[in-house]
Amino acid sequence: MSWVYIENLKKYINENVEIKGWLYNKRSSGKIHFLQIRDGTGFVQGVLEKSKVDEEIFENAKRLRLESSIIVQGKVREDPRAPSGVEIEVSNLKIVQVPIEDYPIGKKEHGIDFLMDHRHLWLRSKKQFHILRIRHEIVKAIREFYDSRGFVLIDTPIFTGAIGESAGNLFQVNYFDYGKAYLAQTGQLYLEAACMAFGKVYNFGPTFRAEKSKTRRHLTEFWMNEAEVAYYEHEDNMKLQEDLVSYVIQKTLEHAENHLKALDRDISKLEKIEPPFPRISYDDAVKLLQRKGFNIKWGDDIGGDEETAISQEFDKPVIVFNYPRHIKAFYMQPDPQRPEVVLCDDMLAPEGYGEIIGASQRIHDYDLLVERIKENNLPLESYDWYLDLRKFGSVPHSGFGMGLERVVAWICGLRHIREAIPFARTLYRLHP
Amino acid sequence: MSWVYIENLKKYINENVEIKGWLYNKRSSGKIHFLQIRDGTGFVQGVLEKSKVDEEIFENAKRLRLESSIIVQGKVREDPRAPSGVEIEVSNLKIVQVPIEDYPIGKKEHGIDFLMDHRHLWLRSKKQFHILRIRHEIVKAIREFYDSRGFVLIDTPIFTGAIGESAGNLFQVNYFDYGKAYLAQTGQLYLEAACMAFGKVYNFGPTFRAEKSKTRRHLTEFWMNEAEVAYYEHEDNMKLQEDLVSYVIQKTLEHAENHLKALDRDISKLEKIEPPFPRISYDDAVKLLQRKGFNIKWGDDIGGDEETAISQEFDKPVIVFNYPRHIKAFYMQPDPQRPEVVLCDDMLAPEGYGEIIGASQRIHDYDLLVERIKENNLPLESYDWYLDLRKFGSVPHSGFGMGLERVVAWICGLRHIREAIPFARTLYRLHP
Repeated sequence: MSWVYIENLKKYINENVEIKGWLYNKRSSGKIHFLQIRDGTGFVQGVLEKSKVDEEIFENAKRLRLESSIIVQGKVREDPRAPSGVEIEVSNLKIVQVPIEDYPIGKKEHGIDFLMDHRHLWLRSKKQFHILRIRHEIVKAIREFYDSRGFVLIDTPIFTGAIGESAGNLFQVNYFDYGKAYLAQTGQLYLEAACMAFGKVYNFGPTFRAEKSKTRRHLTEFWMNEAEVAYYEHEDNMKLQEDLVSYVIQKTLEHAENHLKALDRDISKLEKIEPPFPRISYDDAVKLLQRKGFNIKWGDDIGGDEETAISQEFDKPVIVFNYPRHIKAFYMQPDPQRPEVVLCDDMLAPEGYGEIIGASQRIHDYDLLVERIKENNLPLESYDWYLDLRKFGSVPHSGFGMGLERVVAWICGLRHIREAIPFARTLYRLHP
Repeated sequence: MSWVYIENLKKYINENVEIKGWLYNKRSSGKIHFLQIRDGTGFVQGVLEKSKVDEEIFENAKRLRLESSIIVQGKVREDPRAPSGVEIEVSNLKIVQVPIEDYPIGKKEHGIDFLMDHRHLWLRSKKQFHILRIRHEIVKAIREFYDSRGFVLIDTPIFTGAIGESAGNLFQVNYFDYGKAYLAQTGQLYLEAACMAFGKVYNFGPTFRAEKSKTRRHLTEFWMNEAEVAYYEHEDNMKLQEDLVSYVIQKTLEHAENHLKALDRDISKLEKIEPPFPRISYDDAVKLLQRKGFNIKWGDDIGGDEETAISQEFDKPVIVFNYPRHIKAFYMQPDPQRPEVVLCDDMLAPEGYGEIIGASQRIHDYDLLVERIKENNLPLESYDWYLDLRKFGSVPHSGFGMGLERVVAWICGLRHIREAIPFARTLYRLHP
């Protein structure tokens, strides 16, 4: 009898199959056990009737506890009422293991700390099952987008001696005789080198920020996708971001609609996401915030609460562009018309989700970049190779970074980012 | 005039196009400049004839140095002799930047330290261009393999409090009030938790080993793909590895044959790679090595030189299985027939490339795992959640890890692993 995964059962109607999985739930009467079985690909009900099997099998089923590992044999029956479309008429049941203790995650409400402490088991719950399958589809869509457009994957290093934005938020590692290495919080500088060799490049990997933030949007370890394109200017860059985000939403709807529905996500809100996206200048964003009662003036940074307020005004992601130079990173290209602002943008997801992308055109002029590094009191010698890119065939180029977990939280409609990654790492969480 | 990437020029025969790229090389006579242009997607020759353009354009071209960034306009001409199949009849040339200094990488031989110090520029060279495009295709094939078989991507954490194999080779990070965190050298333990939730899972990310190794096979930071499947035993596991490696080779041949040929790779050796692979027991491997003159006895580990010697005996990857328990990790399932050996395997790539995969069936019995942890003097409390997996619906399960850069080095035919990754990190290299 062949081993079949639950997601494929519909191809085996009226055939005898074997399922290998776990007991997710059980209801019993004196004459019948209803076994809710999961195997990692889906959920199905197994019906075990006393009159149809050996007495020993029926008796054995009585000792099953939640999360018992079981191998079930039986006939697949069509059942239009079941979410899976089928159920199993159980003819044989093999118990691999009955849990040594009662399974700790039950039907009652657990606190978030308890659930995070049991993340290794919590992953088996339905909500987490759906979220991480959606994450899988999002990752796949992101990579497909770039691959289909001829971008080359450049895995940028985590260990770095040079420093991206500021040393304060970097984790430090002891690195042999070098003394310290830093864990990269961006691969941008490396992608800038690579785009001069490959034209269009992207990376996608874990990123580290030692911020002491406890918000629902921060992890110390998160996955980030960055892209960089030679000969791309600000406008090309914004267009690319719109295309990427729209593609990811459409592909996720295509491949994970059932999972989104299982999370009660309002899909109509996602279906609207297609280019072009609304764009507002930083200047207008400040005016909008002032009208909404925020105490903000031109030149102030736009924080998390402000981002939420802006994004609630739009039903698509909104692009806020051209921020004041002094609140942005040193490498951003100035606006030729207004040198006090730089050619950058942040993309804010709708429904209050806030920033998912940070982007800019990069300075390509050697002298200007040297000036900026000095102004920021950064060590010129750390940037020797980065400056080389402006010495040897420098070209205008632009890029951006997109935080995966924020995108997953938005698409899934999660309140907190910690459920958007298999094993979250935060200021207070390093376990399991 | 539309911007066209070199890889797409063949679709524009007899049309006028614009190419944005860099000068890779130049030959000139008094009446004609032959410009070798690259744009990250390919290489093409531009022919600039004095009689056909404004004098200023022709004169301008004289001051071009290697790696000048240039925008070239002209008509695409079919040219069967050219590797790209086309050349450009240049009608206009715009110089974006002439390098401030002479480009440091020339046609003469450079030492490896010089090239690695200039990795940010060396990436522009043809050999590196081909290697990293092949790497791109290999990564894509690995992910496609799992996605097409219903595996779920589970990104495992880098920061970890628990410890995989041994603390000696782990990098340490200062982690807020926790004191130390370790950088994961495997995500296996987390994948074991995830496979009980999703059935079939994989990860693919950077991995860190603080080994003081200086061999041509070691990096301190490398990319690893791991897979874990619930209800899979040793034999299923070996079959999965064969299928994966064969798929990756076939897809790379399909999508990157031109790049492999450009590296002078003997493709006939790769075309042979299909299941089944030869398998020899550890016992027989020791006998084979003894016959070849190695000073090795049963119970000794098989080192790098020995692996090279074994793999040279086969023209496909060879699977060496069932090693003595005491030289392998604590979590490996014992052979029920011979408890002194464990159900594990290493896959060695042919042509002397050595180990690319390490694999095993994992212990699923709670008491036996506790015993092994104690025997190895490992802290039981660090493994609390790992032991939970054996308390609550434990099942036989198996998995493996495959080192990406070793696979890239083998497929590309590289002598040293450092060229198989964009920015290598080794004992002595943290820069650029």
